[in-house]
Amino acid sequence: MANESTENHGKAMQPEETPQLQALYRAFDEHNIKPLWTQIGNIMPRHPAPKAVPHIWKWSDLLPLAEKSGELVPVGRGGERRALGLANPGLDGNAYISPTLWCAIQYLGPHETAPEHRHSQNAFRFVVEGEGVWTVVNGDPVRMSKGDLLLTPGWNFHGHHNNTDKPMAWIDGLDIPFSYQNDVGFFEFGSDRVTDYATPAFSRGERLWCHPGLRPLSGLQDTVNSPIGAYRWEHTDRALTEQLLLEDEGQPATVEQGHAAIRFVNPTTGGDVMPTIRCEFHRLRAGTETRKRREVGASVFQVFQGKGAVVLGGETRQLDVGDIFVIPSWVPWSLQAETRFDLFRFSDAPIMERLHFHRTHIEGEEK
Amino acid sequence: MANESTENHGKAMQPEETPQLQALYRAFDEHNIKPLWTQIGNIMPRHPAPKAVPHIWKWSDLLPLAEKSGELVPVGRGGERRALGLANPGLDGNAYISPTLWCAIQYLGPHETAPEHRHSQNAFRFVVEGEGVWTVVNGDPVRMSKGDLLLTPGWNFHGHHNNTDKPMAWIDGLDIPFSYQNDVGFFEFGSDRVTDYATPAFSRGERLWCHPGLRPLSGLQDTVNSPIGAYRWEHTDRALTEQLLLEDEGQPATVEQGHAAIRFVNPTTGGDVMPTIRCEFHRLRAGTETRKRREVGASVFQVFQGKGAVVLGGETRQLDVGDIFVIPSWVPWSLQAETRFDLFRFSDAPIMERLHFHRTHIEGEEK
Amino acid sequence: MANESTENHGKAMQPEETPQLQALYRAFDEHNIKPLWTQIGNIMPRHPAPKAVPHIWKWSDLLPLAEKSGELVPVGRGGERRALGLANPGLDGNAYISPTLWCAIQYLGPHETAPEHRHSQNAFRFVVEGEGVWTVVNGDPVRMSKGDLLLTPGWNFHGHHNNTDKPMAWIDGLDIPFSYQNDVGFFEFGSDRVTDYATPAFSRGERLWCHPGLRPLSGLQDTVNSPIGAYRWEHTDRALTEQLLLEDEGQPATVEQGHAAIRFVNPTTGGDVMPTIRCEFHRLRAGTETRKRREVGASVFQVFQGKGAVVLGGETRQLDVGDIFVIPSWVPWSLQAETRFDLFRFSDAPIMERLHFHRTHIEGEEK
Amino acid sequence: MANESTENHGKAMQPEETPQLQALYRAFDEHNIKPLWTQIGNIMPRHPAPKAVPHIWKWSDLLPLAEKSGELVPVGRGGERRALGLANPGLDGNAYISPTLWCAIQYLGPHETAPEHRHSQNAFRFVVEGEGVWTVVNGDPVRMSKGDLLLTPGWNFHGHHNNTDKPMAWIDGLDIPFSYQNDVGFFEFGSDRVTDYATPAFSRGERLWCHPGLRPLSGLQDTVNSPIGAYRWEHTDRALTEQLLLEDEGQPATVEQGHAAIRFVNPTTGGDVMPTIRCEFHRLRAGTETRKRREVGASVFQVFQGKGAVVLGGETRQLDVGDIFVIPSWVPWSLQAETRFDLFRFSDAPIMERLHFHRTHIEGEEK
Repeated sequence: MANESTENHGKAMQPEETPQLQALYRAFDEHNIKPLWTQIGNIMPRHPAPKAVPHIWKWSDLLPLAEKSGELVPVGRGGERRALGLANPGLDGNAYISPTLWCAIQYLGPHETAPEHRHSQNAFRFVVEGEGVWTVVNGDPVRMSKGDLLLTPGWNFHGHHNNTDKPMAWIDGLDIPFSYQNDVGFFEFGSDRVTDYATPAFSRGERLWCHPGLRPLSGLQDTVNSPIGAYRWEHTDRALTEQLLLEDEGQPATVEQGHAAIRFVNPTTGGDVMPTIRCEFHRLRAGTETRKRREVGASVFQVFQGKGAVVLGGETRQLDVGDIFVIPSWVPWSLQAETRFDLFRFSDAPIMERLHFHRTHIEGEEK
Repeated sequence: MANESTENHGKAMQPEETPQLQALYRAFDEHNIKPLWTQIGNIMPRHPAPKAVPHIWKWSDLLPLAEKSGELVPVGRGGERRALGLANPGLDGNAYISPTLWCAIQYLGPHETAPEHRHSQNAFRFVVEGEGVWTVVNGDPVRMSKGDLLLTPGWNFHGHHNNTDKPMAWIDGLDIPFSYQNDVGFFEFGSDRVTDYATPAFSRGERLWCHPGLRPLSGLQDTVNSPIGAYRWEHTDRALTEQLLLEDEGQPATVEQGHAAIRFVNPTTGGDVMPTIRCEFHRLRAGTETRKRREVGASVFQVFQGKGAVVLGGETRQLDVGDIFVIPSWVPWSLQAETRFDLFRFSDAPIMERLHFHRTHIEGEEK
Repeated sequence: MANESTENHGKAMQPEETPQLQALYRAFDEHNIKPLWTQIGNIMPRHPAPKAVPHIWKWSDLLPLAEKSGELVPVGRGGERRALGLANPGLDGNAYISPTLWCAIQYLGPHETAPEHRHSQNAFRFVVEGEGVWTVVNGDPVRMSKGDLLLTPGWNFHGHHNNTDKPMAWIDGLDIPFSYQNDVGFFEFGSDRVTDYATPAFSRGERLWCHPGLRPLSGLQDTVNSPIGAYRWEHTDRALTEQLLLEDEGQPATVEQGHAAIRFVNPTTGGDVMPTIRCEFHRLRAGTETRKRREVGASVFQVFQGKGAVVLGGETRQLDVGDIFVIPSWVPWSLQAETRFDLFRFSDAPIMERLHFHRTHIEGEEK
Repeated sequence: MANESTENHGKAMQPEETPQLQALYRAFDEHNIKPLWTQIGNIMPRHPAPKAVPHIWKWSDLLPLAEKSGELVPVGRGGERRALGLANPGLDGNAYISPTLWCAIQYLGPHETAPEHRHSQNAFRFVVEGEGVWTVVNGDPVRMSKGDLLLTPGWNFHGHHNNTDKPMAWIDGLDIPFSYQNDVGFFEFGSDRVTDYATPAFSRGERLWCHPGLRPLSGLQDTVNSPIGAYRWEHTDRALTEQLLLEDEGQPATVEQGHAAIRFVNPTTGGDVMPTIRCEFHRLRAGTETRKRREVGASVFQVFQGKGAVVLGGETRQLDVGDIFVIPSWVPWSLQAETRFDLFRFSDAPIMERLHFHRTHIEGEEK
């Protein structure tokens, strides 16, 4: 039914620019009117045509800049965080990695504290290396260690403090661009110091909720956000390891051959950890290449372990530990594993799915 | 717990601009990095601080411009629609009435056809006056008459044709800005003429679905969008009339004293008609003033009948039939009815609710 | 994988009845124990093996008995209702039409009142003929007229009064057997007279809720039961009529060729009117025969208009207006229409679906 | 509004037994009719009046009888399981522990196999002592060890085999009475031997699903039943231990003072493990007494560790390890812990909640 051959989208109907038409256009301007016919090809493209571009930030660039910031820039009330936002080159100099997502490297020096605040924006941290910082979420101190995913969902007070003599860096992911663009954000300052400097191995949320398939009777009400403050690397690693072992045994377990993957979920619902951000972890066997796919919505990956490459919009780019890359909406991509290859991923997929804009195209599959 | 007195948000932590810092900032630029501490006060405001502004478009301005467009601008493939988008003065000249919503007056001359296409963007039409056009949605011709709400949800082919010797104008509402901003849109051309020029009084969707509390056994699968193509004025009017009569009888029925209101819903779920757009109709008795409220997300009203005013961000503005106004996120507003006052409303509330960003503050109520 | 040829279910493993075994069985009895192996074939049959049997009650039998009851049996507090329960011949003399459902003909003489009470059991009335009674549900008087379905969901006070000089009879459907069997029922007496003897044409629930696709803003909270007190025949009839007209036009609308059908639903959710009882209305064109089907769960039909037959467990039975028949679980059935044939149906399908026991087998379809 | 003082429920309206009435009653019998007024007080009681009675089965009675059955009764195709059903003394000699639930002690001798079958009925096993048996569920061997809960949800093939030289006993819980009563059951024989005699420490389901908060990307479709085949005691114990430690630290974690409890859930939804059966584990500190409560629906407890008592319908009964007791609907109960007291619980609560019949009354709380 669709007329795919028509290529004059946004061009054909343009009327001749007569003086009368120019007068009409001036009247439009006076009355805050823009005609559809002059811009439809731009604002209603044939498929997503993101201004955001595929891009890779090398950890070998990011970490030294974060360290230098640690020397030159204090952390405290007002600026709130020593965070370096990754600015997509297509997005006009804003610190947006995609139109929806923010990704930053945050750096906290020895014994520093990032003060408490809360905001509507949903946030997480992922720890590519290091340890020694605790994030205090609504009074619950959560240890940050290598490979862990930590949540600070919208409107929870949170601060960070470094309990050691060594600095620590990690990545922050938030929905700041989405919140800013759609005018949904509230922000409140909390305590200038974190409210609890204890350094327990496990947070209270984990102790209550991190028992597989078990739900406390004191927590039968479903929650919008996951009550789990930290998803520990040991669990993630074991889950991925088991998937590959099951695959070795000929059992269905992986998402495609050689490709193990888990999604971090809210145990009260089985759904995404927060309403706007999906978090996943992927592991490829050495030599595996994933099928090429396109998806509506933006994804960000950080390499956690191993070496490999991403084919992103047709171009193959080498990846090392810590490297971060963004895949804008509908850009085709696949991953190639040189060694065993572990990657953390986050995306805006819950937005797309909840609003029914999601589409996926996988090469070789009928849609 | 919050420290409301701190006013230095985004200011305090700024380090001194030493040569080293300037060098660091240059390195940031080279590596596509933006620090959070220089911009947090802007991108994470204390409460929604929309660039969009409250604004009113007078029907007495819009209609003549639409008529003039009818003389000067053809309608057809390429431009697709003779639609005048209302451009919020705060939004940089884009035809966005809010960051999420598009609102336009569309005009179709005698016996003209707006060709068929489909797109991911969800759309509706509301008819403030006139009749004689049929919208053909996936082959089902839907009559457009005064007071009717018509749906063309995402990815349904649709075109319009005027079956009479008189022009007709109406408003279109879509989620174009949201779709464009978040790179979710697909677009496909359909037939250059509409696929069915029949002019039935009622569409097939209505005949199957518009029986209160009854669901066809051939339609037991829930649908993302309402299967009802047109919500007729006679039903809307009767529902509002009954609410006020019930209020007269001392029964709970209205949303507040003197204020009847209905939401247009998907009969398969009881929820909003489409995943991104909420549609409602409000009726105030003469002399009624609604309670002042703020809401996260943007709303657009069009006056359908009667006279009154809106108090918008503290300023009282008179309203006549056909006038359209936008309430950006978190701007306080209330309505005042001089006569019996009927208003159509649409908003992005489903986005806010599905992503859990919604908040409402009603003056005099505890939150 | 299944071993369909094994026919010794419940027989094979039986051990020899030695004195030791007899002693063991006596010990079982003493300790309130029953071994599985002696009874598995009975309590875990290969497919549903209902004790309930297919049965038809003729309206020409029921109505005179109801009239006779009207002469001999008063209606009032204690007995509560002059209702004749249809007792499935397979169910040991209990007034159960199926293990889950109760169906009765209720009779109210001129100017009689059936007093108010409430109970956990969900109930409805369907009016095969007559008029003049109002059911008062939580204070809201609901007119009962021919073809109407009325709801009195669990824990709503309700009474009936006959406002005329003529008697009226109708059928009641409830989940009494299910409630009794599973010990879930509460019961409370209300007013000895109904609380409101007004006789409005439409109940308040209808006036608020019976506008297709419209939801009052005062009723945005979803409800367990439908807020509609009466589903009027005029709507049911029109919905069925339109389905057949659409079929005539070659459009998908009916559930199978010549077979129009609607489900009565809760407008707040699109789901069944009450958590345990499904209500539907079916219309067959003259000459239509429905496909033979089996379903888990029990259904009851009452002929509303026309003549036809039901093929029930292989036996064809003629049906006249008012006749009521029950289809126990997994008994094959089909309907044959001699004239245009209208039937009201209710069933326990919501129980089966909510607990995931539902299965349907339609002759000629793969399962 | 309710008239609580009326005590003539089911008595008042009874008409005088005249010859005419007797003739009418005979006519009712002939036509399979039962009047409501003669039986309403029985079938619609003021509150649940279960025929099932509170009862305790002593493990010290059950285990010897199971052992004796092991000597005298073979296990194999036909009888299927060497299971001793606990027959509630109020339920007419049926092996029903409640109108909805079946509970049995099952016994498997050294190197015996209970053959594979599948049925609509949902089932679980709980292991109060012992080890050495594997349950094979749809081909996945699941180790059974002390304290573990194992699921075999409806329509999954399953068999058991004892891999050791020692017998093993455990309890089975099913919804057999509910399924039988409501005619929903299907049954199919499978392999006479289990399909896989491997004895892995962990089942494939556990390896894929038992990672807290992590969901395999190969398992994103929600499932009716939990995909976890075994909930291990080590997790249950740790979850309960942490709740009591958190309580010691002054944190909210327990369901009431001194009372830790978890629910076993389906990780794809956070809801109950199966649609008809809820499983929980409770731990009381020594000296704790729970608040007295009544609930709609039946519960069964088995003591796992420690000593204590249950106050059941006003009577205090001592409990030892392995003892099983049933609480019929609406019977008041509380638990008393002499030592630390661990109890496994299962109930029909999902039936009650999904059909909206649930009610709970806790002494001292407003309802």
